[in-house]
Amino acid sequence: MINQTNVNYGKTRSVIRDIFEYGKLRKAEIGEENVFDFSLGNPSVPSPEEVRTELIKLISETDPVALHGYTSAQGDFSVRKAVADDLNARFKTNFTADSIYMTCGAAASLCITLNALLNAGDEVITFAPFFPEYAVFTANAGGTLKAVECDKNFQPDIEKFAAALTEKTKAVIINSPNNPSGVVYTERVIKSVCAALEKHKKNTGNRIYIISDEPYRELVFGGAYVPFIMNYYSESVVCYSFSKSLSLPGERIGYIAVNNAAEDSKEIYAAVCGAGRALGYVCAPALFQQLIKRVLGKTVDVSVYKMNRDRLCAALTSYGFDVVKPDGAFYLFVKSPGPDANAFAERARAHELLIVPADSFGVKGYVRISYCVSPHTIEKSLPAFKALADEYK
Amino acid sequence: MINQTNVNYGKTRSVIRDIFEYGKLRKAEIGEENVFDFSLGNPSVPSPEEVRTELIKLISETDPVALHGYTSAQGDFSVRKAVADDLNARFKTNFTADSIYMTCGAAASLCITLNALLNAGDEVITFAPFFPEYAVFTANAGGTLKAVECDKNFQPDIEKFAAALTEKTKAVIINSPNNPSGVVYTERVIKSVCAALEKHKKNTGNRIYIISDEPYRELVFGGAYVPFIMNYYSESVVCYSFSKSLSLPGERIGYIAVNNAAEDSKEIYAAVCGAGRALGYVCAPALFQQLIKRVLGKTVDVSVYKMNRDRLCAALTSYGFDVVKPDGAFYLFVKSPGPDANAFAERARAHELLIVPADSFGVKGYVRISYCVSPHTIEKSLPAFKALADEYK
Repeated sequence: MINQTNVNYGKTRSVIRDIFEYGKLRKAEIGEENVFDFSLGNPSVPSPEEVRTELIKLISETDPVALHGYTSAQGDFSVRKAVADDLNARFKTNFTADSIYMTCGAAASLCITLNALLNAGDEVITFAPFFPEYAVFTANAGGTLKAVECDKNFQPDIEKFAAALTEKTKAVIINSPNNPSGVVYTERVIKSVCAALEKHKKNTGNRIYIISDEPYRELVFGGAYVPFIMNYYSESVVCYSFSKSLSLPGERIGYIAVNNAAEDSKEIYAAVCGAGRALGYVCAPALFQQLIKRVLGKTVDVSVYKMNRDRLCAALTSYGFDVVKPDGAFYLFVKSPGPDANAFAERARAHELLIVPADSFGVKGYVRISYCVSPHTIEKSLPAFKALADEYK
Repeated sequence: MINQTNVNYGKTRSVIRDIFEYGKLRKAEIGEENVFDFSLGNPSVPSPEEVRTELIKLISETDPVALHGYTSAQGDFSVRKAVADDLNARFKTNFTADSIYMTCGAAASLCITLNALLNAGDEVITFAPFFPEYAVFTANAGGTLKAVECDKNFQPDIEKFAAALTEKTKAVIINSPNNPSGVVYTERVIKSVCAALEKHKKNTGNRIYIISDEPYRELVFGGAYVPFIMNYYSESVVCYSFSKSLSLPGERIGYIAVNNAAEDSKEIYAAVCGAGRALGYVCAPALFQQLIKRVLGKTVDVSVYKMNRDRLCAALTSYGFDVVKPDGAFYLFVKSPGPDANAFAERARAHELLIVPADSFGVKGYVRISYCVSPHTIEKSLPAFKALADEYK
């Protein structure tokens, strides 16, 4: 008998991936332009032009043996130093190269961090709605994910959070800007989360880590402020990916940053290195490590996502949908007109609208619309949304 | 308390990585040309020129959103189909795209496969000497690695192998051409391994999988024949990487191929997908997936490695060292003149020769010399090897 947990993970896939794969088949059937695929967080805005020019320079001008060779397991030193310097300049932190561990993207960052911190039986808390793979990653690291509800604006409910902390709680995953709601957690909320953890530590001696999963940090609109966790809480780890900020999701490049102020920061960093090793992450892709060093600080043109958000929010609201207007990421969280979001998503599919019911994000009665599509697709999809709304009137 | 297993993995590193990191510091101290670094299997022969030209073409001519976007979790369909077709043409197999799962390199291939197959408490057998990370990867998948001795030519000892099989044995890892010995297992040996497994199944009902770890498949000299496991045993999985054949170790690109003839081949493939998901491997790097499709069948210039092998074998033998002449890979296995290979490697280090004691490969009294260095380095290192040999006279 082979491993049935993994057989099941392989057969079920995530709901998101499932709809994405359906979309690919459907597009082949009726033509790409006739399917409105809002399923996947696959960035639609191209990488900044520097990505193309610097990649070509690197490949043309660098000795291929050096360029494509193994780096140190934690990443090339000069790349880690550049990432640390960039963070220090932006957030007044004091990272060194040895605070940074380059990874194969956000999922790798999270899996490695969870395996570094957790022992069998530990609990991890996050706030619903949340990216459903958190549960899979936590389970693989031997732990259990517990979701705490948010308020009606999808900000964490601090009272419920404080009540959920137990002696088994090892870590809290914060994801802001949030997937799937697009909401940016306020500074007041972040401070309250940290205060609850400090109080818990004082009362029980139990040290709880914050894992800040922030691939959407740079995708914010109207100057929304995204607190940097290291400035609020010492026992913290940042999991980052360049997938969204540089539109490189397929290239699997990101990093883990360990807070120098953590009491056992050197142990945490060692555990990160060890977990990366045990999970088979030999090093992050070498070419893209070098690319990152050259384009740090650059981002995609976020104004396209803002335009999509504004257009979609306004239109859906005018059709009668109840929409949570997001400050970041590229997701719109929409209340299902009927109680069953799955049924709603099914009816949407009849209009060739591929949207994801939020049940698997830990919240019932909502759907996620990934608006990382072309403005043209948004425009073309509106009659379908209108027709869908009309069905519920 | 964070995860101490991973803290330890992070602090100890592999012996190979340790020596490699020492080498980097030493080179900074006394100059790169004065350190003879035979520690790491980092290919020295540049990628074929097509790698450079095709990468530039892909980056120049492809829409970056498509090029750098997520692929399906198991890899882009057209890439998997190309890999399947290539294998079918070479080995008369009948793979389809859905037999192939693209990975972030050999370590990922192995970790994913082990997590797919193993349940907690299972045993995995391999043959000593073996790549020491097998033990780490197996432990992370919940299993235990057991090493079976080889004969004096470093071919598996079939009697000892048959005796080592138990009801707990879930898989056998075969690595040929072998790291660290460079030995290619003969067809007779492969057939005997398979026969022992068939007999075990007949007697006990226990189905054991063969995992063939073959990043060195194309690195063979003098037309040595490397049997393709799928043609000998149905319950088999191939773990491949392009790290060595295309000199792309830092780019993390490889694949898993599941034998269609396996009784539960669809379950195995699902478990591979599930394990990849649970370990955080979202997809293999997208740009290098597309590259692979375009350069399938190309390899680095293997004649350089052959030249290194011949020169080093001849010289070391003439100095009095006892050398196992290898048919493949780029490793030379040398008997330590004294009983303690660690002491020998230490003495070598005084001559600026960085070689790896084979204790961590599961064999005492030998060292591994990675001769994937320039022919010039080989030449320049010979007086140091001579002086080292003289110390033992």
